[in-house]
Amino acid sequence: MDFKSKIKTIEWISSKNVSRMVDQLVIPYEYKLVDIKTSNEMYNAIKTMIVRGAPAIGIAGAHGMALAAIEIAQKTKNKEDFLKLLKEKAEFLKGSRPTAVNLMWAVNKQFELAKNSDTTVDGIVQRLIDHGIELENDDIEINKKIGDYGAELVPKKGAVILTHCNAGALATVGYGTALGVVRSAFAKDNTIQVFADETRPRQQGARITTFELVMDNIPVTLITDGMSGYFMNKGMIDMVVVGADRIASNGDTANKIGTYNLAIVADYHKVPFYIAAPLSTVDTSIKTGEEIPIEERDHEEVTCINGKRICAEGVNVINPGFDVTPHELIKGIITEKGVLYPPYEESIKKAFGN
Amino acid sequence: MDFKSKIKTIEWISSKNVSRMVDQLVIPYEYKLVDIKTSNEMYNAIKTMIVRGAPAIGIAGAHGMALAAIEIAQKTKNKEDFLKLLKEKAEFLKGSRPTAVNLMWAVNKQFELAKNSDTTVDGIVQRLIDHGIELENDDIEINKKIGDYGAELVPKKGAVILTHCNAGALATVGYGTALGVVRSAFAKDNTIQVFADETRPRQQGARITTFELVMDNIPVTLITDGMSGYFMNKGMIDMVVVGADRIASNGDTANKIGTYNLAIVADYHKVPFYIAAPLSTVDTSIKTGEEIPIEERDHEEVTCINGKRICAEGVNVINPGFDVTPHELIKGIITEKGVLYPPYEESIKKAFGN
Repeated sequence: MDFKSKIKTIEWISSKNVSRMVDQLVIPYEYKLVDIKTSNEMYNAIKTMIVRGAPAIGIAGAHGMALAAIEIAQKTKNKEDFLKLLKEKAEFLKGSRPTAVNLMWAVNKQFELAKNSDTTVDGIVQRLIDHGIELENDDIEINKKIGDYGAELVPKKGAVILTHCNAGALATVGYGTALGVVRSAFAKDNTIQVFADETRPRQQGARITTFELVMDNIPVTLITDGMSGYFMNKGMIDMVVVGADRIASNGDTANKIGTYNLAIVADYHKVPFYIAAPLSTVDTSIKTGEEIPIEERDHEEVTCINGKRICAEGVNVINPGFDVTPHELIKGIITEKGVLYPPYEESIKKAFGN
Repeated sequence: MDFKSKIKTIEWISSKNVSRMVDQLVIPYEYKLVDIKTSNEMYNAIKTMIVRGAPAIGIAGAHGMALAAIEIAQKTKNKEDFLKLLKEKAEFLKGSRPTAVNLMWAVNKQFELAKNSDTTVDGIVQRLIDHGIELENDDIEINKKIGDYGAELVPKKGAVILTHCNAGALATVGYGTALGVVRSAFAKDNTIQVFADETRPRQQGARITTFELVMDNIPVTLITDGMSGYFMNKGMIDMVVVGADRIASNGDTANKIGTYNLAIVADYHKVPFYIAAPLSTVDTSIKTGEEIPIEERDHEEVTCINGKRICAEGVNVINPGFDVTPHELIKGIITEKGVLYPPYEESIKKAFGN
């Protein structure tokens, strides 16, 4: 069940000590790599969505901490001062995207590693670099496990899988969560197909999901966000799989705005709706989705497309970047430790216990 | 309860014998009037959506028949030949937008009028012109009645009304159906507000609804199609009102793609969902929504915005222009003869009986 994707979204280049990433702002027009050389550049890369997708942002955060460590080690070899400055950089990096818990997870993990390292400042720097690379490799392994567990849920040969936003190779290091399920399913049955929601306002579905699926020769049909019910009503959609930005202890899931509408529409048509995400997306510190902060993003994302205004001057805008799908609309959460089913409080606890 | 709109979407100019309309392709950048001088120009104006919105298309069809009559009368004064050619033009005009029943209704009405006129060819031409103007005036009167009936359904002071696409002054002659309800409600309570779905792929909500509401100083917030559930979940939406392109005898309603998703999401949140439409939108010749033809539109509407491609090459597209909302999701149909409630078979029959 091994599917080879052509995509490597983010990668530490040891010979140059930079984080090399696919520039997602120019997709679908170009597949361009950019080298991120400083922690400030990394903050901007995450904030402006040169890199996006919760798992990829996690790796970007880990790389950002390695870059920060390199910078700070040039100023001081005193470990206490080093850790103090690194802590500041950690808080700074975590502020670049408040909803994605993977970012907090990876940045905190790097800081803890630094704090607990019984070595010199330069030794710590090397450990953060090595650990960033380790997390990259873990991400692909985890995605493949998610993909393989998810592929078992595909209900029939030639199934049509609908997804929202991009939880693909380009949202991770190189295989994908929701699209990891697609890749593993496609390796077993190359007659499956994907329907991709456009995903306004940032159009990750149109721009990124179509791009990576075409690149990997998996058939994909682009639809607008308002069309899902039309196709479900015609019996043309067999399952929905989306990613997640943060999952609460009860299974409530924050994901790209529009996911909640899609879950309601799937529920109405009795089409199974799944979340695919690594366990690092689960925030066990919060009980329900109500505690998840929802990022309010730039209003121009709604009022302009490709730099051109699409609405009248004088209009109000609210632009929540995410919404929360309540656990009761989620049939299962596909993780690297298997598919979790309701009641999620228990299945999540159990997955972490293993 | 009289709200004065600044908009006149379509108007017969007797001094020039042309149909003058607002060019909706350049909104929201410009409020430009164009004169349609021939029946062929009218076919293209409807097809390319220079004029759009079911009731406005009806008037355009009536004007198109008047233009056709003028053209044919220049070729023949023989009544039989005239009617034969006029019949051909009627079929031609009806082919410009297959879903909107108002177009069929108005074109057929004009043809019947011509056929039953006991006068000369030139006399018939004048009757079709006069009748086109009469339908214009009727449309505004009908819209005001719809607006006033609908305004009574607004559940509270300062209510927020969500709408999809544009069923406004720019979809009619000058007051609106769904936005007619908004105008009448705003005349009673100027603290009400509108949330407008963007309405991909053609973005009538972003382009046209925001434009006409800003022009008439009614507060409007633009959201993307995937956000409605987010705001309903927060209790920020008090009612949904949309227009209709065709209503079957059982109340099933074809409207702009995305309406069905919105109705499902409203139902899930127990937010009342209304259709606002003149009785000319009801097609009593069909029993259910399954019989309504759904127009498959140009794929570039999905793959490009403002002329720029937004997705990868090699993607598949399906672009249904409309969907059908089943009657069980519709709380009421607001018409010029009052609000119709389920069971719609009976209430519709009764409305036509009056």
